Amino acid sequence: MEKKIDNYLPFILKSNNIARIEDNKVLIGDRRAYPLKKEFVTCHSLEDVAVAIETMVTQGGGPTRAAMVAMLLLAERSDRGEIKRDKELFLDAKKRLQITRPTNTTMARVLEIIVDDICNAIDSGKNIGDVVQSFIDRHQGEYEKNSFRMAEIGSGLIENGDGVLTMCFAETSFILSIAFALEQGKNIKVYSPETRPYLQGARLTAPCLMEVGADVTLITDSMCAYIMSQGKVKKYMTAVDIVTRDGWAANKIGTFQNAVTAHYHGIPYFPFAIDPDMTRKGREGIIIEERDPEEVKMIKGIPTTRKDMKAYYPAFDIVPPHLIAGIITPKGLISPYGLESVFNDKNEEAI
Amino acid sequence: MEKKIDNYLPFILKSNNIARIEDNKVLIGDRRAYPLKKEFVTCHSLEDVAVAIETMVTQGGGPTRAAMVAMLLLAERSDRGEIKRDKELFLDAKKRLQITRPTNTTMARVLEIIVDDICNAIDSGKNIGDVVQSFIDRHQGEYEKNSFRMAEIGSGLIENGDGVLTMCFAETSFILSIAFALEQGKNIKVYSPETRPYLQGARLTAPCLMEVGADVTLITDSMCAYIMSQGKVKKYMTAVDIVTRDGWAANKIGTFQNAVTAHYHGIPYFPFAIDPDMTRKGREGIIIEERDPEEVKMIKGIPTTRKDMKAYYPAFDIVPPHLIAGIITPKGLISPYGLESVFNDKNEEAI
Repeated sequence: MEKKIDNYLPFILKSNNIARIEDNKVLIGDRRAYPLKKEFVTCHSLEDVAVAIETMVTQGGGPTRAAMVAMLLLAERSDRGEIKRDKELFLDAKKRLQITRPTNTTMARVLEIIVDDICNAIDSGKNIGDVVQSFIDRHQGEYEKNSFRMAEIGSGLIENGDGVLTMCFAETSFILSIAFALEQGKNIKVYSPETRPYLQGARLTAPCLMEVGADVTLITDSMCAYIMSQGKVKKYMTAVDIVTRDGWAANKIGTFQNAVTAHYHGIPYFPFAIDPDMTRKGREGIIIEERDPEEVKMIKGIPTTRKDMKAYYPAFDIVPPHLIAGIITPKGLISPYGLESVFNDKNEEAI
Repeated sequence: MEKKIDNYLPFILKSNNIARIEDNKVLIGDRRAYPLKKEFVTCHSLEDVAVAIETMVTQGGGPTRAAMVAMLLLAERSDRGEIKRDKELFLDAKKRLQITRPTNTTMARVLEIIVDDICNAIDSGKNIGDVVQSFIDRHQGEYEKNSFRMAEIGSGLIENGDGVLTMCFAETSFILSIAFALEQGKNIKVYSPETRPYLQGARLTAPCLMEVGADVTLITDSMCAYIMSQGKVKKYMTAVDIVTRDGWAANKIGTFQNAVTAHYHGIPYFPFAIDPDMTRKGREGIIIEERDPEEVKMIKGIPTTRKDMKAYYPAFDIVPPHLIAGIITPKGLISPYGLESVFNDKNEEAI
């Protein structure tokens, strides 16, 4: 299965290019350098990985895999006796990684399970590295199976002649949906907003879509409603960082305003959610990460205004369920009001 | 009156800093250099002025004044015998200036009147420079009177404790509205989206608002709806490049999507229109200027994506009347459906 999925995916989304262990170090694909360069950041420690996540070396679904691989590094070092076989150490590592991204809870939940497994392995004297590697393998297998299933649904929603708007970097499920739709012979156009301030749309989404052969057009974040009014957009599709039990979805800032203007134009909005977070409820359950306002005052390091200007940088926004036409999940296209009818509270999807 | 208005205005909006004649040349305030530098571009000919307008040395209401001053330069040269006293020459000059900005029709209409006056003056053997100077003086007097009146209305709409969202650079009427509201002792906040791709919000609006002492926060264009959902915005106010007879308004790309999301949140949208264009009807009457898509692929000259990426750059968008709470005009706060009841077809406001 892994080989098959990689055939469809652009460079930065192939699992080994997201994060892998090589020579007792973690290599993380550097999404800041793409598309101009295909480079890796070398992490010598778990702290290095945490900092890499915090400094946006990887983003979207990347931090979850990077965090798992960081745990594997620690586990292997423990098995080799390079570090202590100590539960506290793994619990601290978990906490350090979890605080790198407060909005997306997938990584946090995955780390809970891994560290539980590690603690059990320590108690029962098992090889920890094997336990973590086995978890990663199962997680990757599930991820690929789920991504394929969601891409089948996503590509099925895209009709011949459609224009599709996205926002930020919707990653595997979305890129696969487009790739499948093209494979089905559909003539489609994709519109990628640049996604200020960090430009994930210009740097990641649009180049990845080019890699899979899509007809993609880059626009600014201010143009989404206008191209809708021109009839250029028939579907709006994004990833989400979190979907709560009652259908509230958080994603990169700008996702909400596109959802409002899509609704105004009668364009359905379909977010991809591999694992709704059934432990959270409503918009109160979502923590919106605020980042350094200095980033709003510059672009790629070049200042755009006065140094003493005040700025504000909420990194995500929240879409209410009534603006969502259906959530694309591994279990089908679910109503935002129907997650509890399909996903149970144990949230087994986290594996 | 001129002195009085200048006391309220930031540097780049003072009339002599927009455009003036000095030593047989036209000086145009360079809005590309502001706020980091306060510089002028020197134009030796009408063609220089046309190119300056095309290359965005000035923008918004600036091109109208720059075009009038360019006509004055030509008129004075004609009076001094440096160039022919020839109607064709002025008609050609008018056409050259009019094509610099297809969306905003104010400059086009002002030039029609000026060149009519010039042709009459040539026929009757009068000094042309005096005719043009007199037109500019009357126009400036009207402009200041109208701006004051609109700012009285605008500041009256802003209540103590309000947050005000704008888009792009709404110039004199809006900046004066904020200055008057502050003078009235109102505690207000202003939110300025950066306005990609050309960053008028970051470069012009936010710094001008700082100059008049406002509490302004810079955001990206993708954050407008989110700050509305937080309750931070109570009024949405922009300039318009054109309002048609039946209340359709065109302004910088992004204005429309903010109008949609403002309407969704119950926030009234008040555009400022000094002179509705009663010769145009509906959205069909509005030509949307498309600019070089390369600008979407870079920021201040720095590329943000692959060189071979396709991009799209419509410079303006169009707001339908049902999203407009009222149009702030020199004749009052008019319903978008009521322009014909207040402005007649002769459109005397153009002077």
